[in-house]
Amino acid sequence: MKKYKGYLIDLDGTMYRGTEGIKAAIDFVHKLKTNGIPYLYVTNNSSKTAKQVADHLNGFGIKATAEEVFTTAMATANYISKNLPNARVFMIGEEGLRQAMLEKSLLITDNQPNVVVVGIDREINYEKLAKACLAVREGATFISTNGDIALPTERGLMPGNGAITSVISVSTQIAPIFIGKPHSIIMEQALEQIGTLKKDTLMVGDNYDTDILAGIKSGIDTLLVHTGVTMEEHLKEKDILPTYALHSLEDWCI
Amino acid sequence: MKKYKGYLIDLDGTMYRGTEGIKAAIDFVHKLKTNGIPYLYVTNNSSKTAKQVADHLNGFGIKATAEEVFTTAMATANYISKNLPNARVFMIGEEGLRQAMLEKSLLITDNQPNVVVVGIDREINYEKLAKACLAVREGATFISTNGDIALPTERGLMPGNGAITSVISVSTQIAPIFIGKPHSIIMEQALEQIGTLKKDTLMVGDNYDTDILAGIKSGIDTLLVHTGVTMEEHLKEKDILPTYALHSLEDWCI
Repeated sequence: MKKYKGYLIDLDGTMYRGTEGIKAAIDFVHKLKTNGIPYLYVTNNSSKTAKQVADHLNGFGIKATAEEVFTTAMATANYISKNLPNARVFMIGEEGLRQAMLEKSLLITDNQPNVVVVGIDREINYEKLAKACLAVREGATFISTNGDIALPTERGLMPGNGAITSVISVSTQIAPIFIGKPHSIIMEQALEQIGTLKKDTLMVGDNYDTDILAGIKSGIDTLLVHTGVTMEEHLKEKDILPTYALHSLEDWCI
Repeated sequence: MKKYKGYLIDLDGTMYRGTEGIKAAIDFVHKLKTNGIPYLYVTNNSSKTAKQVADHLNGFGIKATAEEVFTTAMATANYISKNLPNARVFMIGEEGLRQAMLEKSLLITDNQPNVVVVGIDREINYEKLAKACLAVREGATFISTNGDIALPTERGLMPGNGAITSVISVSTQIAPIFIGKPHSIIMEQALEQIGTLKKDTLMVGDNYDTDILAGIKSGIDTLLVHTGVTMEEHLKEKDILPTYALHSLEDWCI
């Protein structure tokens, strides 16, 4: 088995499931740390700050710091900061997205915005959606943190950010720029942050349609672990397989 | 020109535009009334009751009664009443839809619904969308009053019910039963109510994608009037043309 010098690791379904940490994954990260191999948690969650995500992981007994976490909210703020000078951002989203924007000193406003950003927002309402539609129709750049259609919760699968985003894309007939997995914008930034070469980096995750496709699209090797969404039988219908597929990270030698 | 014995007539863009009545259309309806030719206003509006729509028309100087108005809310309530016995309806929508459901004695509840109905709701929130998604995933019949993607207002094009509905269809990957134009459910019911044969009935409207397609799909002749959405040049790209297309209803002989 090839030795990798850097790991990009998904969270939900890979490191924990519901309210429980996945022991094999926790041991795997512990080995990475002990061996001084860099890793970065890459998550489509835009509602929490990196610090909040790290605290959440610590609650599962996974020792983590904010520096080990890269959220799609951070990737979105970076993207705007690099590519859209003089951005006036109308934002739909929660604390994680707001903090990420403020850390990049981006202007959040609903006065003549030229950028519309949509992240999951459990306080969504018609007025926010209307303002987003009007601004996108006026020519504002339309960005969505991620296209996840559903959000797993104890109540069941709730509407994800991709579903909320569709109000604006369906109404305006304009497709957003998606930042999160499986799209490559978040991956390119995560690779830059971890600092390893593509050929030396492995993407680890439980979801073929986000984690594995993200790796495939950005040209890095992938490891699918069957502890979350995508099971062995689901792979039969896929054209491109992950580089590796395992039932548990226990079976992985770093 | 063929003589028709019954007319189904669209409202917004056909009878009025913004806050003004369209004189030629008002005169046309006046002629229908004087000649005793039956007509019915058929609208994708689910937010208002028939009485409220009639009052709105009266405000433009168009004499109208509730009996002359057939809304997609009424068609939706009829559809459920006829096809879904023991319906327990979770409803997203406004006054017009609620009244239509109550008039058909339908049970509106968020306790174990087996039908989810979505109409335009300017009080939309995440909890309503979540409940709808959970119920549809549990097998509830998913119905949408109409698929209009945008709602013309003085502020510009706001999200329409088709855009709101997409949150649930995108998240659950289940398509709704659409009731309103261009779908034929509303048209079949409108034809039943007006009581004329298909071959003797004409659908009049300004929007190719709703009014005219509705007529085409339900097998009745159509008259497109260029006073609203669809202009002459837009027809070049259409495979099936309306039976008639006019710049003004002034040029129409009943």
